[in-house]
Order: sequence, then structure tokens, then C-alpha cells
Amino acid sequence: MCVGGSIVYDRERRWRASPLKKRHQRKRRSGFQEAQRNLRSQQLRKAPEYEVMAKPRLSSIDGKLAEEFAIPSHINEVGEKMSAFAVHHAAAGQRVVLITSGGTKVPLESRTVRFLDNFSSGRRGASSAEYFLDAGYAVIFLHRHRSLYPYTRTFSTVNMLDALQFSGNTGEVVVNQQVLPNITKVLKRYQEVKDSKLLLPIEFNTLSEYLHLLKTAAQALSTIGSKAMFYLAAAVSDFYIPSSEMPEHKIQSSDGPLQLSLNMVPKILSPLVKDWAPQAFVVSFKLETDATILIEKARRALETYRHQVVVANVLDSRRCYVVVVTPETQAELTLTEEDVRSEIEIEERIVSTLTSAHDKFITQ
Amino acid sequence: MCVGGSIVYDRERRWRASPLKKRHQRKRRSGFQEAQRNLRSQQLRKAPEYEVMAKPRLSSIDGKLAEEFAIPSHINEVGEKMSAFAVHHAAAGQRVVLITSGGTKVPLESRTVRFLDNFSSGRRGASSAEYFLDAGYAVIFLHRHRSLYPYTRTFSTVNMLDALQFSGNTGEVVVNQQVLPNITKVLKRYQEVKDSKLLLPIEFNTLSEYLHLLKTAAQALSTIGSKAMFYLAAAVSDFYIPSSEMPEHKIQSSDGPLQLSLNMVPKILSPLVKDWAPQAFVVSFKLETDATILIEKARRALETYRHQVVVANVLDSRRCYVVVVTPETQAELTLTEEDVRSEIEIEERIVSTLTSAHDKFITQ
Repeated sequence: MCVGGSIVYDRERRWRASPLKKRHQRKRRSGFQEAQRNLRSQQLRKAPEYEVMAKPRLSSIDGKLAEEFAIPSHINEVGEKMSAFAVHHAAAGQRVVLITSGGTKVPLESRTVRFLDNFSSGRRGASSAEYFLDAGYAVIFLHRHRSLYPYTRTFSTVNMLDALQFSGNTGEVVVNQQVLPNITKVLKRYQEVKDSKLLLPIEFNTLSEYLHLLKTAAQALSTIGSKAMFYLAAAVSDFYIPSSEMPEHKIQSSDGPLQLSLNMVPKILSPLVKDWAPQAFVVSFKLETDATILIEKARRALETYRHQVVVANVLDSRRCYVVVVTPETQAELTLTEEDVRSEIEIEERIVSTLTSAHDKFITQ
Repeated sequence: MCVGGSIVYDRERRWRASPLKKRHQRKRRSGFQEAQRNLRSQQLRKAPEYEVMAKPRLSSIDGKLAEEFAIPSHINEVGEKMSAFAVHHAAAGQRVVLITSGGTKVPLESRTVRFLDNFSSGRRGASSAEYFLDAGYAVIFLHRHRSLYPYTRTFSTVNMLDALQFSGNTGEVVVNQQVLPNITKVLKRYQEVKDSKLLLPIEFNTLSEYLHLLKTAAQALSTIGSKAMFYLAAAVSDFYIPSSEMPEHKIQSSDGPLQLSLNMVPKILSPLVKDWAPQAFVVSFKLETDATILIEKARRALETYRHQVVVANVLDSRRCYVVVVTPETQAELTLTEEDVRSEIEIEERIVSTLTSAHDKFITQ
């Protein structure tokens, strides 16, 4: 019997189930309703532990990562790739930025039909990657499968086949440059970057994959100290269902309205700053829909995690207004209507603000 | 202040809030926790009503659609397009199939950061569309924004810029046919279909958009009676949070673990078969992860909704094994390893089985 072959699906097949998960497989078969009851009662017991986690003990997070989030089977291979990439470019005098981009998928079932997701096209991460490359950084682009990608993002709304035509003379298939006016410029730049090997793309799909890959990346980049920047633009879920508590099979609608109890995702930023890459320059993002709580939440994040920068933005205005918040400073970056008309992107300004801050950080 | 411009985001801006939603906007500001409490208590009151819905009264579903699912502002425009398309091609002697494809997005917040989704690449819908076109059908392709698309699906795993190169002589940008060996064949067929105007693509993103567009499509196709086929391959959520009960702003993780109560989505298949397009040939899909309950669930669906066909499949084997279930018959379609090697797709067999069944249905 052959198996379904979409990439998304294959990627999920690549999990190694944690021992805990295996142990619970049988339990889960005893039915979703019961699993839900267990989950809810367990939830109450767990809540205090999660409060402690706001100031986490590394061991507890590392334990949780291994136990409750399935480990991607390719994690070691990817880790070695990232280490080699970081060491090579640092030796060549380059700085290395790890960009995370796109939303995370949180499965509700082990054989996943349903999942929780975060709104993110990956546009901010993809465009920022281009500006970091322009600024001479080597870029590890840790992005959600199928989210926007550097350079190709420019054509993300175009159907490729609408942009192609048969060449009158040669019969070759050529790009219609009326449909893609910038193709020459973009392709040239894409090929330069490819030849320079300054861009290392790594894909994730689920929250588990993201968390493990970020930890591995942090440990890989710790070898180059302050030359490393973390630009954590991905929209990471705050909530999840532990694999040990998930129903194995598709949740049946015939069981009636659905009650979901989700645990809080361990705050990975804390061990990243404290333990995994303590010398690195770390930038996190704060996206809110309510502008009135934005700056307060950014400041609270800096106090809690003791990292260098929070880029704060509001969903409605994120394309032309952000606040770059540090423990000492608060810089508003804005695009005017004129800027927007001339196709200036706010990521260009975010990146130039951050690269200067990274300069100072290194020479401190 | 300019606003974020990703398509996904723009599409969500296009909602017209229902009066009910407007009325509740203020309430929602009184806090998410309270909304959740209201929701849970309300849930208990609502459950019986939803049981009645298993054998739905049209009026109650139509009411629910208008009240609890925001109406896309472009619905009338799209409805007219679909009517014109159906009437024109039916007059020209063609049959018309409405294919739904991809998963539905179920927002958890009004200003959506988080949503519930269904696993679906849209591959089955996209490839089926090609085989229906080959079989002479006019196709309305109602698909999830960014899910796989007919013909382009063949290149979905290729980075477009990796497939392009500068032509040695002309300096044109041409396709590298070593990267895309089938491009000539695919582009030719795509252009034929485009010129014939036999493919009408319509996008949806959220569950609300899907439900309203499907209703509109059904009403549009009702004018051509039994010449219409519905091929409902989309992975539609069984659960949702009514817009009237949604928190307006991003759910705060600082509020602790998340309890979600989701209502059951009205079974739209019932009014579609009974009232909106009673003469049409209707095919629904049943995807399970547990093979042992598959056929029983398919049969129960046929008894409940009284439509013509259920295509039953299991997540792991969906690419090479399906069962086409009708009230009288049950046909297994299988791909052998040899078929897979020679790149035969199971959708080719599904479509040929269904077009023959549609023949009989029309001549009855």
C-alpha cells in the first residue's frame, strides 16, 4: 500500500515518537472524550508549573522539549549543516543572522487532520533576509514550509504559468517580462546569493519542529559568540496539546461540540538567551492587535528574557510602522505614503537599525 | 497609517460584519475569560439544537449562515460570474462541475492572529480539475487561497528562480527544461484551457467564505439541473467559533492555558442536496485516519444527506486507494506500484468513474 506523498505529509512522517508518546499511544485509543477529561484535570495541576516557567529552569524546558515535542529525525544532520555554515562564514569575517519566519502548525491529532496555526505569510522574514544579505550577513533562514521565500516572494501572487510563453523564434519557454518586470534584476541577485552560499534555508512545519530546530541553531551559533544575531520573526504558537495527550485519530464531529484544552508553550527565548547562545545579539518580535498594550508588553519581554531588542508592531500597521525597543531606547520606524509609493519596505529600515545596534554590541 | 497588505490579510478585510457581530463587538471588549465562560455555558444550551441539525431544517441553517458566518463582500459579484459561466457552458452542451479544494481557516479572534485549519494541500482537487477538463467538463474551481492549482501544482515543490536562467544568445530569461522537463506540455495544455475559458477559479480562505460561496455556487448551478456535478473535495472544518462569540483581540498567553469551546458547523450538504441544487449530481468526500470506520461512515452520510456518491479514503493511503460508495454500489479504486511508477494518478480513475455515473444519472 503506497502512502500519501505531499511534502507536508512526508515531513510529518519524519518524526521520531518520544518514548512518552509511545507509552501513551495505547491509552489514547481509549477514546477522545476521556483524553479530553484527563487533559482538563491535568491542566489544572499543570498550571502552577507553567507560571514558574515564566522564569524557567533550563532543565525543565529541555525536559519538556524532549518529552512533549516530537524530535525531527533529521535534527542532527541539520545541526551539523548550521554549525559548518556559521563557523565557515565567521572565519571569513562575516556575521551570521538566524532568521525565523512564518507561522507554526500545532497538531490536534497524532495522525494530523486538524491543527492550530498562526497568521503569517512569512513576508517580514523573507524580505528581511534580503536586506541582511545586502548588509553582508550570512543568513540561516529557518522558515515555515511554503511561507514566503527571499526573492521569489516578489512573485508570490503570480501564477507561474501566466508569466511564461513560447518564444517565437526558438520555441523555448521564456518569461513574459510584462508580467514579471523585475525578473532580470531579481534573478541576477538570487543567483549571486546562491553562488556566494550566504543563504542556508531550513524548513519547519510544526511547532515541535520549530522548537527543536531553534534550539539546535542556537547551539550551532553559540560557537561564534557575539557575531551571531537571532532575528525571531516567526509567529510561534503560545499554546499546544502535548503529543502524549493527543487523540490518535481524527476527532469525530459526531461526538458533539469540541472542547479543547491547550497547554502553554515553554518560553524558549529564556534558555536561548541564558544558556544556548548567551553571547549572541537577540531580537524578538511582538505582534499585537491592540496598540494600547504593545510597548508595555515589549518592555516586559525585555525585563523577563534580558535580551537586546524587541521589534514591536500592530497587525493593522505592521507594514509601515514598528517600534524598535531596547532596555535604554525606543525608536519608531515609519513609512510615509511617499515611501510606500516608491516601494520602500520597512524591513530595510528595521535591518539597518539592527545592524548598527549589532555593531555597537560587538565592539562593547 | 497604511495597512498591512498581504493577500490573506486583505481578503479578511473584505468582510462585512453581520449585525449580530456588530452588536457583540462591545461585549467582547469586556474580556476574553468572560467570553469563554459565556461561550461554554451557551455551548451547553446549544448542543441539543445542533443534534437536531444532523437532520437540518433549511431555515435554521440559512439563518445560521447569515448570523454566525460573516458574508464576503464580493459574494454577489462572484455569484453572477458563476451563473453566467454555468448557463453559457450548459447552453454549449457542456457539463459543469463545481470542485471545492483545500482546507478551511477558522479564526479564533476577530482580528485574526490564530486560527484552526485542516490538513489539505489541495492536490486532489487540483489534479481532479485537470481530468474533468480533459473529460470535457467546464470547471468552477472553488479553492483555498494558496492551495495547489491545476497545472501549476506540477511545479509546487520547485523554487521558480531555480528553474530560470539567462539565455546565452538573447539575454532573455528562459526556463531550464532540465529542472522542469514537462514545462512545454503543461504550458500548452494550460494555455488551451485558458483560451477555452472552461476553468473559473474562485478563492476562499476562511470557513465563512467557503460556506457562503458554496451556497451561492449551488444556487448558480441549480439553473442547469442534472448537468451540474458537485465534487466536494475540500477539507471543511467541523467546528467553529461564532463571530459573535470571538474575542476581538489576540488571545493573551499571559491569561494562562487556553480553553476553547467550538460549535459544530451546520451540515451544509443537507440544504445543498434538498433545496439549493436538488437536481444536481453530488459527490462528497470522507477522509478518515481509522480505516475500520470508513465505509460505515460513508454509508451513513449517504443515508443522512441522500446524495449520489461518497468517495471514501484513508489519510495514509489516499493517493492510491479510494472507495467510491453509492447507495447501491461500492467500487474500490487502487493504484499498483507499477501505476505509481508510470505516474498514473488515482484522480484520473476517480473522475472517469464519476463521469460515467453522471452519464447514467442524467439519462435516468
